[in-house]
Amino acid sequence: MLTLFHHPLSPQSRYVRLILGEYGVAVRLVEERYWERREEFLLLNPAGELPVLVAEGQPAVPGADIIAEYLEETLPAAEVPDRLMPSSAAERVEVRRLTRWFNDKFLAEVSGPLVLERVLKRYMTREQGGGSPDTEALRAGRHNIRYHLAYIGWLARTRDWLAGEHLSLADLAAAAHLSTMDYLGEVPWNDDDAAKQWYARVKSRPSFRPLLTETLGGLPPAEHYADLDF
Amino acid sequence: MLTLFHHPLSPQSRYVRLILGEYGVAVRLVEERYWERREEFLLLNPAGELPVLVAEGQPAVPGADIIAEYLEETLPAAEVPDRLMPSSAAERVEVRRLTRWFNDKFLAEVSGPLVLERVLKRYMTREQGGGSPDTEALRAGRHNIRYHLAYIGWLARTRDWLAGEHLSLADLAAAAHLSTMDYLGEVPWNDDDAAKQWYARVKSRPSFRPLLTETLGGLPPAEHYADLDF
Repeated sequence: MLTLFHHPLSPQSRYVRLILGEYGVAVRLVEERYWERREEFLLLNPAGELPVLVAEGQPAVPGADIIAEYLEETLPAAEVPDRLMPSSAAERVEVRRLTRWFNDKFLAEVSGPLVLERVLKRYMTREQGGGSPDTEALRAGRHNIRYHLAYIGWLARTRDWLAGEHLSLADLAAAAHLSTMDYLGEVPWNDDDAAKQWYARVKSRPSFRPLLTETLGGLPPAEHYADLDF
Repeated sequence: MLTLFHHPLSPQSRYVRLILGEYGVAVRLVEERYWERREEFLLLNPAGELPVLVAEGQPAVPGADIIAEYLEETLPAAEVPDRLMPSSAAERVEVRRLTRWFNDKFLAEVSGPLVLERVLKRYMTREQGGGSPDTEALRAGRHNIRYHLAYIGWLARTRDWLAGEHLSLADLAAAAHLSTMDYLGEVPWNDDDAAKQWYARVKSRPSFRPLLTETLGGLPPAEHYADLDF
């Protein structure tokens, strides 16, 4: 049995949960307040970041991209025939490029600051960085999401899925980050219809359901969040 | 023939040059002032970052980690028998963990800010972010490098190479970032003898030679930079 150390509104944690969901792999979830820098957690991942995947008796696998590569390399092909990572070198480059785009760039410019300011700061002590949201950071994140949504829309108009002809890790990474923003009501869906249609397709997959039914005490999701016809 | 868009003091560009050097793969280097956001370069890598590898007639491969995975997957095993990525799943996790440690964390906390403040700002216009160095950023980078050097020293005392028994991508990533700091005379070598001995071993490899003989006009390297017995 696998264990995933995660946080419900960590976009990279959601990304790994979507991969496991698509591959039909059961996982035990442990919510980790990583900003508390718990000693046992730092032993699993010295970088102190989420998510971390642990298979019994194996060394911990830290970080969303490394977990994704690990699952691609270790899940038997016979059990999960529809892979989220294509087999040709050129397609793999494009899937990895877009996955990193969301897990690094979207995280730095949009989901990282917005989740920190609107969610995590509520749980942090002042020493951990808690307090009231930095309005300048909120403003920047809300400005940046428009460019990213337009890029997703452009990709969705040009291709069947974000990285090409098939659903891939790139779609799950993009949807994972967007889903945290959608929980907070921060996605200007009316800006881009192609992006919205693409997200509706990913959102209606069974792997997405667990994310849509979870809510955080004291911080309910935006009204349309779980609505497949938003 | 491969082409690598790089910058001489970009740590991630150096990382890819070391991999190509270890594998004996010839490459044509093109220096890219990526902060100028040249349109043709943005077509190769919409993220606008270095390095980018281009094989004739193939789509561009953007980003150090993606280039490393691409080379591992496409270079024929017969031509390069000593791989920098081990074959077991657990060892691959450790190599990727440390590679990301340096390419993400060391970059964010040390080499990114120090190269920006001390080198790139000289070449940037004020609109591009140029100007005099931010002393607070310099101070933070110089503070952080001590923790990273201690971590490298701890790894080097515990293992033959940073990720285990063999030279791997993790050593090249760490050495690439450290080499830019060493060029600028920013490594407190006396802090950690094990880290210094490990670096001396990597530095004396033939793949390192091209990095040690290049200098930037107007910004000579620290005196001991090219010295194998520093």
